[in-house]
Amino acid sequence: MTTLSRLYVVKIGGQVIDDPVACADFLHAFAALPGPKVLVHGGGKLATRIGEQLGVTSQYVQGRRITDEATLQLVTMVYGGLINKQLVARLQALGCPAIGLTGADMNLMRAVKRPVKEIDYGWVGDLTAEGIRVEAFMRLVEAGEVPVLAPLTHDGNGHLLNTNADTIASCVAVALSAHYRVHLVFCFDQKGVLRHPHDPDSVIPLIRPADMPALMAEGALRDGILPKLENAFAACRAGVEQVLIGPAYALSALSTETSTRAFGTIIRL
Amino acid sequence: MTTLSRLYVVKIGGQVIDDPVACADFLHAFAALPGPKVLVHGGGKLATRIGEQLGVTSQYVQGRRITDEATLQLVTMVYGGLINKQLVARLQALGCPAIGLTGADMNLMRAVKRPVKEIDYGWVGDLTAEGIRVEAFMRLVEAGEVPVLAPLTHDGNGHLLNTNADTIASCVAVALSAHYRVHLVFCFDQKGVLRHPHDPDSVIPLIRPADMPALMAEGALRDGILPKLENAFAACRAGVEQVLIGPAYALSALSTETSTRAFGTIIRL
Repeated sequence: MTTLSRLYVVKIGGQVIDDPVACADFLHAFAALPGPKVLVHGGGKLATRIGEQLGVTSQYVQGRRITDEATLQLVTMVYGGLINKQLVARLQALGCPAIGLTGADMNLMRAVKRPVKEIDYGWVGDLTAEGIRVEAFMRLVEAGEVPVLAPLTHDGNGHLLNTNADTIASCVAVALSAHYRVHLVFCFDQKGVLRHPHDPDSVIPLIRPADMPALMAEGALRDGILPKLENAFAACRAGVEQVLIGPAYALSALSTETSTRAFGTIIRL
Repeated sequence: MTTLSRLYVVKIGGQVIDDPVACADFLHAFAALPGPKVLVHGGGKLATRIGEQLGVTSQYVQGRRITDEATLQLVTMVYGGLINKQLVARLQALGCPAIGLTGADMNLMRAVKRPVKEIDYGWVGDLTAEGIRVEAFMRLVEAGEVPVLAPLTHDGNGHLLNTNADTIASCVAVALSAHYRVHLVFCFDQKGVLRHPHDPDSVIPLIRPADMPALMAEGALRDGILPKLENAFAACRAGVEQVLIGPAYALSALSTETSTRAFGTIIRL
């Protein structure tokens, strides 16, 4: 049995992208991460602001956000163009051989337009790990390239689709886990998963499935963290070695094996 | 001596991109072109229209267009995002394994920000064939990918740069000519180089350097075609096998060796 290499899949959201200092710090830390790696980025307030200037307003049906034609064009411009290519140019300047991609490029991520049931979500793509073209990702990664993925997939019929960045990160992580020991990192706006939601320093360093009943009994894990944990365990059951949830500014803790600093919360089986 | 493969570098401009029918026809013909190939696209009226909606107006100094920060963001969105990714998604649907890229991606095209002399052109990049990372292009092309290049380069210091699409096409063609028999195709809005500028059917099928004095003496080659021919001869002297200038709708003439139809004007040494 050969030992698989570790590969990081790191997801950042709008709160990092919108903050110039946080983004610069993050990019330095990401560029310094050793070994093969993939970056997945979300949007940010920029798309909303540019959308307002263009007169594109978010459409909602029964409280659910709809991706109409104008919104799809907006996110293709802002996520697939502006944010993605600026991140790539800045990573290149840091010596990180980035390549900015959507799911249409190299047919990397093919999704299914969400079926219309009660709500027509519009140009939204539902992605699964089966939609990831692993061979193409591996070809890039093995050549030393660092894919930087915008939250866009395609349907194979000529349409781009708006797809949740967390979902993309999870699907890519799971799909690559047959060939790498994948560490899936979600950067978010707290120091980790908190035992006491109002104490920002009450980070739980490690959560395994057996810890869940006690954590839930003591009333921890509020504020929408439960679905994140369920998704993390699902990714681990599908092959990901561990999921890390922590703040973008602490990512540099992962770049040295001997670091005494910790990065957020580790979730594993 | 081994025989080199033929590789097409095809450039389309805004007049094709802006016309849905012309663009669809072009993409079918491009997808059908045999062998390795690269597509370079320009902008189109879309950037102007979106720019107007965003309040980004073109700045001019002494009659020269300036790429200020807002304009760079606009072209990064529209060229690097919207147009590029839509072309890629549509080519994928036609079975063409497209990958949309700027010069920052894989450090494919590094340019120099135009030095400020009398005019500060802003974020404009001057590219030469030496700025093309041939090894990375070859890796993509040899793997069967079809690069789709937006008219953006980077400076290696974290900035994207606005770069003329014709220049990108020529530089990529020249840089790859050490490894392929490169045919550089410029799609434009006439049937070819015209002997009589007001007769759209007076296409000159072949122009070689020795033909130039007579063509100039008879007053042909007006309407800005002379610089195009000079650039074409320069590309040929630098290694490109031939340059073709013709209409996008006729590109399909190149996809069969036995085609009885011609494509525009051939320029070679």
